Amino acid sequence: MHFGFSLLHTDATSHARLGRIITPHGEIATPAFAPVGTQATVKALDPRDLHELGAELILSNTYHLYLRPGADVVAGLGGLHRFMGWDGPILTDSGGFQLFSLAGRRTFSDEGVLFRSHIDGSQHLFTPEMVIHVQEQLGADIIMCLDECAEPHDRAYNERALARTHAWAGRCVAAHTRPDQALFGIVQGGIWADLRQQSAEFLTALDLPGYAIGGLSVGESKAQMHAMLEVTAPLLPAGKPRYLMGVGAPEDLLESVARGIDLFDCVLPTRLARNAALFTRQGRINLRNARFERDPAPVEGGCGCYTCRHFSLAYLHHLFKAEELLAYRLATIHNVHFLLHLMRDIRAAIAAGRLSALKEEFLSGYQLVPEGTRAASLERRGATHKTHTDEAK
Amino acid sequence: MHFGFSLLHTDATSHARLGRIITPHGEIATPAFAPVGTQATVKALDPRDLHELGAELILSNTYHLYLRPGADVVAGLGGLHRFMGWDGPILTDSGGFQLFSLAGRRTFSDEGVLFRSHIDGSQHLFTPEMVIHVQEQLGADIIMCLDECAEPHDRAYNERALARTHAWAGRCVAAHTRPDQALFGIVQGGIWADLRQQSAEFLTALDLPGYAIGGLSVGESKAQMHAMLEVTAPLLPAGKPRYLMGVGAPEDLLESVARGIDLFDCVLPTRLARNAALFTRQGRINLRNARFERDPAPVEGGCGCYTCRHFSLAYLHHLFKAEELLAYRLATIHNVHFLLHLMRDIRAAIAAGRLSALKEEFLSGYQLVPEGTRAASLERRGATHKTHTDEAK
Repeated sequence: MHFGFSLLHTDATSHARLGRIITPHGEIATPAFAPVGTQATVKALDPRDLHELGAELILSNTYHLYLRPGADVVAGLGGLHRFMGWDGPILTDSGGFQLFSLAGRRTFSDEGVLFRSHIDGSQHLFTPEMVIHVQEQLGADIIMCLDECAEPHDRAYNERALARTHAWAGRCVAAHTRPDQALFGIVQGGIWADLRQQSAEFLTALDLPGYAIGGLSVGESKAQMHAMLEVTAPLLPAGKPRYLMGVGAPEDLLESVARGIDLFDCVLPTRLARNAALFTRQGRINLRNARFERDPAPVEGGCGCYTCRHFSLAYLHHLFKAEELLAYRLATIHNVHFLLHLMRDIRAAIAAGRLSALKEEFLSGYQLVPEGTRAASLERRGATHKTHTDEAK
Repeated sequence: MHFGFSLLHTDATSHARLGRIITPHGEIATPAFAPVGTQATVKALDPRDLHELGAELILSNTYHLYLRPGADVVAGLGGLHRFMGWDGPILTDSGGFQLFSLAGRRTFSDEGVLFRSHIDGSQHLFTPEMVIHVQEQLGADIIMCLDECAEPHDRAYNERALARTHAWAGRCVAAHTRPDQALFGIVQGGIWADLRQQSAEFLTALDLPGYAIGGLSVGESKAQMHAMLEVTAPLLPAGKPRYLMGVGAPEDLLESVARGIDLFDCVLPTRLARNAALFTRQGRINLRNARFERDPAPVEGGCGCYTCRHFSLAYLHHLFKAEELLAYRLATIHNVHFLLHLMRDIRAAIAAGRLSALKEEFLSGYQLVPEGTRAASLERRGATHKTHTDEAK
């Protein structure tokens, strides 16, 4: 069997689930968080780091790899796993979200998306068929249908985008030829419950091996995101994994798992790390803060990551002040560890029937970044091209 | 014993020596090459990388650490070893070479060196006594006397600088209090054999635990460098280690070992790596070259470094084109491995009485960078401030 999902346990008091995804490159215990390796590298980390951190799945971006180095180059070198030296499971997105983010540089039509490269301005067309072909060249274990993500607040636009997303899903299924890749569908529908419901029902009828929920964390409120998850997740087949795209704040992971999500990806831990913002159980800290100049403590007492086991806040503060390359690596290790460790805690809590207790414990100590603040904007996947190239840098 | 040097073997047909330096933080098999960690980090590497690469000594810069984070900060955090998480031997330079490089921003006088920080323009005075105090705060295993490095071609200036270097050496010895640190003297004298001789004799009379040769690889020709080594090394005591500062090109290591040098440091492997220039047995290659776009081979077939064991030229080419942080790390691992592996080969060849055969074999296949070219200028330690901040970035 190339791909499979076993639902191992469902929480008695929430929609949380324990499961296991099987892929040709290994298994993934769910709920799981996938670090993002946009350009065939999780920024500042090497594959050994990822294994040691316990990453069981990473995401890479079709849009970026198509442009550079080119899917044919990757295919000629044996596919993405061999190219980047990562032998674990990989998921590639379809580029839909990147194209959505390329505001002013792309045009959506029924045929596909005409866009100009953020690298050299060259013009390209992504059709559903071509996006599948590119993802088959890359060779990830899980690939995604091309979708049209829409601004969350425009109902008429969301209706048109949803119709196109559904038509494209059918074309993607028809174009897909590799039996060793699992093609997931993407539920859209903005912040409208009836559109989400319609999308979940349409895609479920296609009997795909897994389903993503897209178009969230793009500007709607957290309450709206939760509402959409509550509408959508129960409509998706219980025996298939459910993947919430682009979400990775600790509080969002806890809230979404409780609403039935099995899989997440997000640039948040890696991007924050490069901005010197580190997760702790008390909330985020910024390593550039002068109060850390002489602090001999680790980022977090008791943390088992390489960074916390060997280095002080003072040293990390120095590395960021001095703009040393090691700063980005050590900060990234901690943030990825933090989220992967949180996911392990979450899985253990589900198994023990105490997810709500974990959620309460965690959130009572964790200072949230207020919505609408500049710090919060870093947390969004970002609906702008700039934010995307930030991650590409 | 805090510090010691055992001369294990002297080559029959050259001045090459095998030895062992003992320090409070471990032993160093010589001839040895020390990677440079200017700002308390070997750029892009962590301490585990350094151990795995087989580094037995690293160098850090007093000038840089004094300015940022400050020697008192480092001392308050338990010293440089603990601060940077490296438990092996460390050598700190005295700042003399950095001050020499700060052309237009510093004034040498008999008292010391008045200079303006390259970071914020603030004014500071380095005296011999203060440089020793700073190095005692940092706590390296081997520390250096303050010296005045001089442009190699001005005889009168070199005479004055040498007199000052000798006076300062005496003041450094008098100021030095920590018995667990070995204080080395630095032979100067530019490209004049009689000045080099005078310096070696003066410093030898101070009976220091080790001697460095400074002021080379700063603009003189390779032939001049070799001539100065041939004059100086035999005048230094056979039972003390001899350290050639700031030299690290493979051909220079081979030539200098044959002339009796035991120890080297240089930013070359790390700086070249960040410029995508990698060592191979055939010479340097640049990973940005378009010919590597689809090349599935490693940088060097048979190389045992992490980079060559896991990644293709095509992948490294992609990482550099995409300006990914992992590029600098993987390239640095290879270059440092290359030099440390060469030093192992050199030690084995001395033990087997075949150093000249190794030298001939290596140099017959290795394409040298022509002197005076732009690529060669990268190789110099750099007599400009810019070059230094390059390494600091």
